[in-house]
Amino acid sequence: MFYHIKELQYNAKPSQPDPVYAKKLQEILGGQYGEMSVMMQYLFQGWNCRAEGKYRDMILDIGTEEMAHVEMIATMIAQLLDGAPAGDQDQAAQDPAVEAVLGGMNPQHAIVSGLGAQPNDSAGYPWTARYTIASGNLLADFRANLNAESQGRLQVCRLYEMTTDPSVRDMLSFLIARDTMHQNQWMAAIEELEQTQGSVVPSTFNPQFEKQEVSYSFMNYSEGEDSRTGRWASGQTMDGQGHFEYIQNPESMGQKPSLNPAPSYIHGTPPVEMRKMQTTRDQIDPRMQI
Amino acid sequence: MFYHIKELQYNAKPSQPDPVYAKKLQEILGGQYGEMSVMMQYLFQGWNCRAEGKYRDMILDIGTEEMAHVEMIATMIAQLLDGAPAGDQDQAAQDPAVEAVLGGMNPQHAIVSGLGAQPNDSAGYPWTARYTIASGNLLADFRANLNAESQGRLQVCRLYEMTTDPSVRDMLSFLIARDTMHQNQWMAAIEELEQTQGSVVPSTFNPQFEKQEVSYSFMNYSEGEDSRTGRWASGQTMDGQGHFEYIQNPESMGQKPSLNPAPSYIHGTPPVEMRKMQTTRDQIDPRMQI
Amino acid sequence: MFYHIKELQYNAKPSQPDPVYAKKLQEILGGQYGEMSVMMQYLFQGWNCRAEGKYRDMILDIGTEEMAHVEMIATMIAQLLDGAPAGDQDQAAQDPAVEAVLGGMNPQHAIVSGLGAQPNDSAGYPWTARYTIASGNLLADFRANLNAESQGRLQVCRLYEMTTDPSVRDMLSFLIARDTMHQNQWMAAIEELEQTQGSVVPSTFNPQFEKQEVSYSFMNYSEGEDSRTGRWASGQTMDGQGHFEYIQNPESMGQKPSLNPAPSYIHGTPPVEMRKMQTTRDQIDPRMQI
Amino acid sequence: MFYHIKELQYNAKPSQPDPVYAKKLQEILGGQYGEMSVMMQYLFQGWNCRAEGKYRDMILDIGTEEMAHVEMIATMIAQLLDGAPAGDQDQAAQDPAVEAVLGGMNPQHAIVSGLGAQPNDSAGYPWTARYTIASGNLLADFRANLNAESQGRLQVCRLYEMTTDPSVRDMLSFLIARDTMHQNQWMAAIEELEQTQGSVVPSTFNPQFEKQEVSYSFMNYSEGEDSRTGRWASGQTMDGQGHFEYIQNPESMGQKPSLNPAPSYIHGTPPVEMRKMQTTRDQIDPRMQI
Amino acid sequence: MFYHIKELQYNAKPSQPDPVYAKKLQEILGGQYGEMSVMMQYLFQGWNCRAEGKYRDMILDIGTEEMAHVEMIATMIAQLLDGAPAGDQDQAAQDPAVEAVLGGMNPQHAIVSGLGAQPNDSAGYPWTARYTIASGNLLADFRANLNAESQGRLQVCRLYEMTTDPSVRDMLSFLIARDTMHQNQWMAAIEELEQTQGSVVPSTFNPQFEKQEVSYSFMNYSEGEDSRTGRWASGQTMDGQGHFEYIQNPESMGQKPSLNPAPSYIHGTPPVEMRKMQTTRDQIDPRMQI
Amino acid sequence: MFYHIKELQYNAKPSQPDPVYAKKLQEILGGQYGEMSVMMQYLFQGWNCRAEGKYRDMILDIGTEEMAHVEMIATMIAQLLDGAPAGDQDQAAQDPAVEAVLGGMNPQHAIVSGLGAQPNDSAGYPWTARYTIASGNLLADFRANLNAESQGRLQVCRLYEMTTDPSVRDMLSFLIARDTMHQNQWMAAIEELEQTQGSVVPSTFNPQFEKQEVSYSFMNYSEGEDSRTGRWASGQTMDGQGHFEYIQNPESMGQKPSLNPAPSYIHGTPPVEMRKMQTTRDQIDPRMQI
Repeated sequence: MFYHIKELQYNAKPSQPDPVYAKKLQEILGGQYGEMSVMMQYLFQGWNCRAEGKYRDMILDIGTEEMAHVEMIATMIAQLLDGAPAGDQDQAAQDPAVEAVLGGMNPQHAIVSGLGAQPNDSAGYPWTARYTIASGNLLADFRANLNAESQGRLQVCRLYEMTTDPSVRDMLSFLIARDTMHQNQWMAAIEELEQTQGSVVPSTFNPQFEKQEVSYSFMNYSEGEDSRTGRWASGQTMDGQGHFEYIQNPESMGQKPSLNPAPSYIHGTPPVEMRKMQTTRDQIDPRMQI
Repeated sequence: MFYHIKELQYNAKPSQPDPVYAKKLQEILGGQYGEMSVMMQYLFQGWNCRAEGKYRDMILDIGTEEMAHVEMIATMIAQLLDGAPAGDQDQAAQDPAVEAVLGGMNPQHAIVSGLGAQPNDSAGYPWTARYTIASGNLLADFRANLNAESQGRLQVCRLYEMTTDPSVRDMLSFLIARDTMHQNQWMAAIEELEQTQGSVVPSTFNPQFEKQEVSYSFMNYSEGEDSRTGRWASGQTMDGQGHFEYIQNPESMGQKPSLNPAPSYIHGTPPVEMRKMQTTRDQIDPRMQI
Repeated sequence: MFYHIKELQYNAKPSQPDPVYAKKLQEILGGQYGEMSVMMQYLFQGWNCRAEGKYRDMILDIGTEEMAHVEMIATMIAQLLDGAPAGDQDQAAQDPAVEAVLGGMNPQHAIVSGLGAQPNDSAGYPWTARYTIASGNLLADFRANLNAESQGRLQVCRLYEMTTDPSVRDMLSFLIARDTMHQNQWMAAIEELEQTQGSVVPSTFNPQFEKQEVSYSFMNYSEGEDSRTGRWASGQTMDGQGHFEYIQNPESMGQKPSLNPAPSYIHGTPPVEMRKMQTTRDQIDPRMQI
Repeated sequence: MFYHIKELQYNAKPSQPDPVYAKKLQEILGGQYGEMSVMMQYLFQGWNCRAEGKYRDMILDIGTEEMAHVEMIATMIAQLLDGAPAGDQDQAAQDPAVEAVLGGMNPQHAIVSGLGAQPNDSAGYPWTARYTIASGNLLADFRANLNAESQGRLQVCRLYEMTTDPSVRDMLSFLIARDTMHQNQWMAAIEELEQTQGSVVPSTFNPQFEKQEVSYSFMNYSEGEDSRTGRWASGQTMDGQGHFEYIQNPESMGQKPSLNPAPSYIHGTPPVEMRKMQTTRDQIDPRMQI
Repeated sequence: MFYHIKELQYNAKPSQPDPVYAKKLQEILGGQYGEMSVMMQYLFQGWNCRAEGKYRDMILDIGTEEMAHVEMIATMIAQLLDGAPAGDQDQAAQDPAVEAVLGGMNPQHAIVSGLGAQPNDSAGYPWTARYTIASGNLLADFRANLNAESQGRLQVCRLYEMTTDPSVRDMLSFLIARDTMHQNQWMAAIEELEQTQGSVVPSTFNPQFEKQEVSYSFMNYSEGEDSRTGRWASGQTMDGQGHFEYIQNPESMGQKPSLNPAPSYIHGTPPVEMRKMQTTRDQIDPRMQI
Repeated sequence: MFYHIKELQYNAKPSQPDPVYAKKLQEILGGQYGEMSVMMQYLFQGWNCRAEGKYRDMILDIGTEEMAHVEMIATMIAQLLDGAPAGDQDQAAQDPAVEAVLGGMNPQHAIVSGLGAQPNDSAGYPWTARYTIASGNLLADFRANLNAESQGRLQVCRLYEMTTDPSVRDMLSFLIARDTMHQNQWMAAIEELEQTQGSVVPSTFNPQFEKQEVSYSFMNYSEGEDSRTGRWASGQTMDGQGHFEYIQNPESMGQKPSLNPAPSYIHGTPPVEMRKMQTTRDQIDPRMQI
């Protein structure tokens, strides 16, 4: 259950409207690595959590914080849209500043949401639940979370460079700092899990049932061997269970596939002999129908 | 540029058809963490790569391998669909085995793809390019890759448990082994990058421009403090630049938001005083229109 | 900003697992009129609200409650999935009860979410932000809300009929009651707004600028006049500004459209005379290219 | 069955081309509340209608009219696109008027549809059938319809403000008037149904089976009580069956959730004791595999 | 403008309900090659048509017919859903016939549409406007239409094999015949256009501006030369302008790509030398920020 | 299995950056008829192919070539994005050239992909697997392929007109030539199949089971008879099995539909008599619930 506090977690008030920037800022609201994604991802991971209580609590704490981030950015966007110009393009063409705004705005910010934030990304594409990763395996999911906070902080930093409004930058500097924490947080949780269960997900699958002869081989599927010079191509493997091997010319280990013809009720391409017979339609034997 | 080899990377031939399992196996072909996703993800990361040559080469090597995995699973699915029954449900209800197949099959495997594999997941949802992560920052993207290989191996292991067909399990054991390698590979590449550039993405954003006082604070947004007992709540931070701090009762640091009314051409909810005047439509002053 | 309370708003614990019902229950979690939709809809309406404070507060109160509903249903689904069977269909075909479960389950509940709830509907389709209606005009949006609570209560009632588990029915009886309240709540808010601003949205558009001669005409676009017998075809209009009129045979009031040929750089279908000349490719005059 | 009349329902011919406005006008063609949505919504409601004949007839009459609206707007858009400039951005930068057009156009209007209308919204997002509401309960669906006509008229009014072309405005004034009628029409039909079946949807669910103690309570999930001052917080409820009650501090009525560990074949996070054992991979007992 | 006729184009009434078949039949209603697709495709092609009047008229005639097909199939589905069972799976497991229905139904047919047809396909995926092809070049679009009628007739034939209900088969036999006509119709229209404008789309692009040395070469990107034995590898080309050539070992004609590093405000992977410097965060020069 | 060659199939290097054109070029990378679509379409058709070996080989050869096209265009886009400006709109408004770029760019090219190509179209919409057509009937699918190459070449020609960069045009001239070949290739393969199996897909459905009296009738669903003047309205049909017939006024051949009321557990609109009874909620007989 949740309670709402009217104050924002941090200030979200621009120095002046900027409808074009509002469109860009949508990326970290409703984009794949926006705040809606981490909010829903952490909430679902928390609600589905079947592990020790401290994980559920930690995950829901951060999920609840992300809701406050969604709120801040939505509030910021609504204010950046204040006073967006209406009017037609002819008039705009006479005033380059108005024109720049009209050309760069997302028209749905006026037509659909009436100068409000939308749960969409900067290309106007709606947020989708496929962005929400929750597998029931915490080590896998914490890696998803570390990725999300890495992509997210990267995008906020890029948006920081795209504005000079000090108030917008102030809010972004807060979000960047929280993403620093959240990257550290997931790295810490990952280290804790890896130390007890190993680093390959899932750790509970019996290695005897995997094809162990190819478990540590780098396969070079191109001419040239630039890829041989990385850490991934030699030395002990990261799980401590083997050594990297570099396969210069990986060979096929499988069959040349050949599929059976489809049964007649599928009406696939008929075999050659049969096709020959069918140049006039009435020659088809009704009995081949089921 | 690419060349195609007719033989598969590894054997992909079931012991017998199983159209219901074919539906489930679609998850690792066209699902969010199926082989199409890693194939496209690595290819786009490679083509967009602006870093040293060994990274581009390594990424494209593995991307090229994933194409062979897509091919294997597609081939397997087509054969699992061999001889899927047609016929109506009435007849099926008399034969429980046929009924089980008809009820559990994806009807599109017959109607749409004619007993062929589809680029969809096990719920019939089509693969979408939003599954492809490529940000231009390799450390961020390698974390996405490690996550993808973790989620992917987890799903293949679950599918391994859902069949007893030894030939299907043989193919899955190969994929599981390759996912072991690929998790190790991305862990190795991540370690290499972190050692030179630090672990917080992006490392090039000036920390003086982030709100450093909240960069290492865990905020407890719930009653109870179970979340205090993890590695993320105390000790040195993972980036080596600070110490985790636990905030028991995080307070608001922001304003209580209040938005301006929208301009008249937006036709939002009119302010109270104005609304009072509008109980009959002809009382509206035409001049309020622009 | 938000705080999380560990206890649920109401009990959400089934008497026994039922993975097939878990799939159906997803509809009111991640479906178009599930709890995620009303939660996001109310939160965005509240955050974007430019009207009096009491509206923002009321909308966010109910948005915060809906988050608790999402949490309850997610928790219920995870428990309904407890002990879902794995194993292959051959074995299942020997035990009708197991088979019924395997055939009716969503395979992603095992493969993808590991017996956890998903942000998807009962057909496995992911929740999308296009379900979130927030226009900046409260009367329009409250009608969206009344619709959402009507569709939502209807679906919960249907799901109530599809189970006999008393604990599941107990949770649903709570949700049904809250939907009763929420329908009443939006009806009350709508009445309040209509009394001051009139019932046609938006009320601020000058009626002199609409084509008033067709503002109250029912147009009968079919043979037969069954549609004449309803309240919508005669008597005073609901906005109190006119009378319904029934047009038996509505005539066209517009032109027969005819479009200009496209400019040459569009490479649309060439005009007839030009096509005649182009039977061999080298006859094309290079100058027609820009 | 349908017949087509070559003339449009109303004139749809702009005074001059305006490719940028064509992009915006797409919103009311292929957007969530565009004419395609109401057309498909009414047609499906009509075809699925299991109630008295007058409803089916009325719904299909209006559905058939909406098809004419789709036709008008598509025709208008194609003409607004007449003579859209091609050519590169360098040249455009020398002519601000051309540049404004090139920057504001949807490039797909040239590349994909060859100066034709698209079934997409103003952000280029394709129309999806999830916009089509048809539940089989007419009161619920008529509320969906009243919402659709409210959002739709709001968007047309906003688009009216964004152009000064008198011919475009003329067509929009017709659509605005028809939306006035359609809002009145659905209000009339709703009133008729509410009078006979009550106002809470569905009216056929036995109220004894809902948790009646919370059926009329407003729950205040935030600090502050601004939400107490509305019609929804006191007085008789709109269904005439109770009185609104304001709960100042709603308490949890449910359990603190705790989920069972997943079965081993799910490969979720292993319980703590088990994880400790797994620091080397070969220690796993093969028997834990099924 | 359109008029609606209450009678269906052809009979659509099943001999008895069959909710499982209703789910499958959705494919030709709301699937990629269902009747909604051809209806919308032809309507948009017609409305956007800039060629001679006979094409617009012909296209809109067939588009109007397809609307009648959508109506017939929707009506059929609603009746196939008559009397779909409710009730829980436990009870169903005792009656194999009921269980077969419950397991094979789409749950949304009960929960969402209340035994009505949905604008979705047989996997429950909603129809999307991306299925609508209308490019402004009629030869291209007529090929899209011929494909649509080919895929569509194929699917109807497969559905014909999946039922034994004579009334359902009767309706399908009508649709199959109309698809025979429509394939013939588009073949005729294609032949007419090809005879005047040539067979390569678009015919108006100056061939001197294409890389003519590869315009007729089959490139063999695999080991083995099975592909050499087809009509596409030798003889005169279909456009009559050249001869097919078989390239046994196609060589690269392009550069080995190498991308520049990204500018600093993109925060991509830093160049090696720079990375070395950044092992502690405070060493970053603030001036590298813009 | 595949191998990667580092060199591109053809040169892909612009004369200078052009981030606005990069956005447009996305259409032929990740659009419906972009190279990703034909690549995936041919690969799936090849892997699923159940016909003679020469078809599988030919299809996979061309699928492998399309991968090289994806690679070329992705490489081109990344270079067109080189040096895209950051910075705010205020500054841009002072420099029309910068402004034109900022207004016309896709913001995700900076924020999300860090100056890399995306698997999206020119409107920013992600590629979806629904673009992949593979039915198991080669004649149907080759028509899909001919359509794809026609739409594709049309779009590349339009993009050719939108740039004056000679290096970009050089790459496009190569793609245009290959599309010339591929249209010829599919026309050749279609002719080969039609000659042996007939031209109506599927040829294996017994014509006695279709409603042959309407198999060759053109139905004129509009006033006016412009549509009578085409090849499709008279003469021998293209399959050589009949003659086109023109139906001036097609009549309904079906019933006037009438649906049964829904069962009570569906809670649809209650029948009139029942509704009358329900004006107060407590009058509902609990026994009507199951």
